[in-house]
Amino acid sequence: MTDGAAPRRRGRPPRSAGDDGPGTRERILAAARTEFSGRGYDKTSMRGIGRAAGVDAALVHHYFGTKEAVFAAAIEVDFEPALTVDAILGDSLDGLGERLARHFLAIWENPATRTPLLAVIRSALTHEAAAKVLRGVVLRRLLERVAAELDVPDPRLRAELAASHMMGIVIMRYVLELEPLASTPPARIVALVAPTLQRYLTEA
Amino acid sequence: MTDGAAPRRRGRPPRSAGDDGPGTRERILAAARTEFSGRGYDKTSMRGIGRAAGVDAALVHHYFGTKEAVFAAAIEVDFEPALTVDAILGDSLDGLGERLARHFLAIWENPATRTPLLAVIRSALTHEAAAKVLRGVVLRRLLERVAAELDVPDPRLRAELAASHMMGIVIMRYVLELEPLASTPPARIVALVAPTLQRYLTEA
Repeated sequence: MTDGAAPRRRGRPPRSAGDDGPGTRERILAAARTEFSGRGYDKTSMRGIGRAAGVDAALVHHYFGTKEAVFAAAIEVDFEPALTVDAILGDSLDGLGERLARHFLAIWENPATRTPLLAVIRSALTHEAAAKVLRGVVLRRLLERVAAELDVPDPRLRAELAASHMMGIVIMRYVLELEPLASTPPARIVALVAPTLQRYLTEA
Repeated sequence: MTDGAAPRRRGRPPRSAGDDGPGTRERILAAARTEFSGRGYDKTSMRGIGRAAGVDAALVHHYFGTKEAVFAAAIEVDFEPALTVDAILGDSLDGLGERLARHFLAIWENPATRTPLLAVIRSALTHEAAAKVLRGVVLRRLLERVAAELDVPDPRLRAELAASHMMGIVIMRYVLELEPLASTPPARIVALVAPTLQRYLTEA
């Protein structure tokens, strides 16, 4: 009756306590995030993810299917802090621009959340497959939900213009490290940027 | 008396009509732009640039010194259209936001100018050496000159906020190809973005 005695079947992942218990998917996902973040999309392989997670590569395939799918799942985790938009949207559109600006800068100011996000953006900018995955996650989890709350013409376009400004700030502040933007206190940036976001999101 | 009979000296480029005549520097620079654009910063070598230009790698070193310096020279050429800011600044700050938005979108709408610019941005986002070079060129040739014309507190910060918005639009429209932004007519984007740029550049 025990799985441990069953012969291994070709093409199916081995089932043993260490390999495929509760938490295995999470362990693979954590390893995948480390691999993608450290090596970039291109140099990360299913085999490498398996090795980092201490499981056979076949188990990585079993849980996720393809490298693109593992990347998508990793992005969902990495973007989780950026995607908790419900609290930011709140009950009213008043002050939405300021809440969004403050929320995004807080995520990017924190190295623990910044590092994996930067890795995702770098991968997306250099690999079409990664760009496609990021596009899907950002659209579905962030832009469509913000757009649904807006009362302006072309709400999706408005949400994308607001998001583009935040993305450009992220790249110039944290990647290119252009001064004085890179060392300007977050509160000052929020004060300057909030009216722009507010206008895109609320003014017809 | 002829150079042709002189023995080659170690560490100095050979001098012959095909190698080092007028236009050699330009030929090397053109080859470098093609190499950086096609292969990215990391995979481009001084040897590869020399091969593509039909000259010895020593000549590439002779003219430019280091790979970073060739990259800097290539960026200056690629960014030339984006850096002709004098005409855009014009005589008055009225309508500056609109002129800037229209100018930048025109450059990015044209595949001949978009392709090398995208390659430069991708290199800068993935390699610190390339980021440093881009930072220097953009600061000196674009941001400092725009900032010098402004009559607001923190003019450099204002110029960088305006530039960050354009950079974010470029990435979301041309790299991630997020819809509807990717297929929105340039004139519509200019109309929406111009007031933002105008506010950053002129309102205290």
